[in-house]
Amino acid sequence: MGEFDLIERFFKRPPQRVDVGIGDDCAVWSPRSGYQLAFSADMLVEGRHFLSTTDPQRLGHKALAVNLSDLAACGATPQAFLLSLSLPHADSDWLSGFSKGLFQLADAHACELIGGDTTQGPLNIAITVMGEVPHGQSILRSGAQAGDDLYVSGHLGDARLALEAFRGKVSLPQPVFDAARLRMDCPTPRVALGQALRGIAHAMADVSDGLLGDLGHILKASQVGAEIDTHIATTLMQTARQWSCPPDLAMSCVMSGGDDYELVFTAPVASSAEVLAAAHGCGTRVTRIGRITPSRTLSLLDAKGQIVTNTFRSFDHFA
Amino acid sequence: MGEFDLIERFFKRPPQRVDVGIGDDCAVWSPRSGYQLAFSADMLVEGRHFLSTTDPQRLGHKALAVNLSDLAACGATPQAFLLSLSLPHADSDWLSGFSKGLFQLADAHACELIGGDTTQGPLNIAITVMGEVPHGQSILRSGAQAGDDLYVSGHLGDARLALEAFRGKVSLPQPVFDAARLRMDCPTPRVALGQALRGIAHAMADVSDGLLGDLGHILKASQVGAEIDTHIATTLMQTARQWSCPPDLAMSCVMSGGDDYELVFTAPVASSAEVLAAAHGCGTRVTRIGRITPSRTLSLLDAKGQIVTNTFRSFDHFA
Repeated sequence: MGEFDLIERFFKRPPQRVDVGIGDDCAVWSPRSGYQLAFSADMLVEGRHFLSTTDPQRLGHKALAVNLSDLAACGATPQAFLLSLSLPHADSDWLSGFSKGLFQLADAHACELIGGDTTQGPLNIAITVMGEVPHGQSILRSGAQAGDDLYVSGHLGDARLALEAFRGKVSLPQPVFDAARLRMDCPTPRVALGQALRGIAHAMADVSDGLLGDLGHILKASQVGAEIDTHIATTLMQTARQWSCPPDLAMSCVMSGGDDYELVFTAPVASSAEVLAAAHGCGTRVTRIGRITPSRTLSLLDAKGQIVTNTFRSFDHFA
Repeated sequence: MGEFDLIERFFKRPPQRVDVGIGDDCAVWSPRSGYQLAFSADMLVEGRHFLSTTDPQRLGHKALAVNLSDLAACGATPQAFLLSLSLPHADSDWLSGFSKGLFQLADAHACELIGGDTTQGPLNIAITVMGEVPHGQSILRSGAQAGDDLYVSGHLGDARLALEAFRGKVSLPQPVFDAARLRMDCPTPRVALGQALRGIAHAMADVSDGLLGDLGHILKASQVGAEIDTHIATTLMQTARQWSCPPDLAMSCVMSGGDDYELVFTAPVASSAEVLAAAHGCGTRVTRIGRITPSRTLSLLDAKGQIVTNTFRSFDHFA
């Protein structure tokens, strides 16, 4: 199977909204007037972002999901993506699974593959995604205001719990491990919620490197601080329903676990009903886990409002 | 040096035309009305697309150049790009050289870095580039018509000559090797020519995998054939002025060498003066190397118009 056969067989589909799709030097796209375009790029490397044993269908899902999560974080509606793929060899079974997972998620969000590149080399998946957002309505990291409520979507910490199990640092009952691993391998980008929060949220980011680190980006860009109610946040592990996680482990998984692909956002206290309605409308749970402060510091509080020592670090590829 | 320091130090610059640049979940861009957007993505892998000894400044240039070449091939004007970079480690000297070469070429084309990703892993450079083209004026592979003249820009075959020298298959005088190596490491994307040919060229592609292969894409998409005058085409090596290349080697380097990043295009015979004026206007040589035929075959002709046996293959990563 040659390079062009591979593209034809696994990746080329009839153009949908794109004017010129796969098969020319460039894809050609006609943007709609009244909208801005949002772009993000994420690269997944074997052994770094995923295990070599990861099911290719799940990997296809995840490679696009982490990019859609960035679009969600600025309130954009997915439109199209480009895929650059470095493969050790052209393995039909792998490609079949990978493209199936990729396109299932792409189709669920009407996000069209419009181009890319395929080459031989160590396994590496680089996706650039494009979305659209009504002019001036993107939700940035820089809009948080002191007094805002602080929210997160969905669940936190389960992906890290799975990683700790893979590393042998914790032993999990099989159903708990399976559930946690599904969160690690198949994150759900909060695309509908991101759009529903346009005009409501002041600031938003996705949780990819860990809650504290990604919230930290919002605080830095907005020049504010935050308090997190840890007794609420640490209840957010999905697997908590099945398994009682040791408190220290739950705290570290939730605060700095990473790979969650949830949304962390702020909104005025007066908008709390709108936040809940937006979340309800797209079937995604959101939890108020704290508040934005004018202090420029990020504090973790216990149930009594006392400060908890913060020794957590977010993920850094070169630290 | 951490991941965010690395981005801050080597890649983050003040936003120019982008509304939101590096440092949020997405870049936000306002497209101009009346224009379509052209997108292309290319991934460069160490050991596959470049040698581990390649000077990082040249590599920064090349990584963007091969993408700009795709924009050129459809007549688009570069606007912005996203860079995903997998690095074995954060080496300041390497990053300094790489970003210098990258930004020199980016600035020369007013092409703004608006986002990307940085991770640890085997050296891999994935760029997605975006350009704009007046609505309906992109030059596609599918527009060639029987009777069109067939042209290429600049020089062909020198990059392959350098590769053959690296492989020990040919011994070159040092100045010839240096000149050929510069063509391999620092290709010149024909961005101005691509735009100048809007409204003139019927079909166009860039020569990245070798003339015959890339011309083949035009022929397939346009459902036509071509004749190449090999006695003209084989004079196109830049190093031919300095060194007399054995005819068989010249033929294979020019016809299927790859890594040229020139433009191959077709235009009506009646437009030959316009083609030459466009080329002259941007200081790029173009050479008429043959013609488009209705036959659906690609023939190589000698000076007497006799068919030369074609045993050349273009580059395929998985063949």
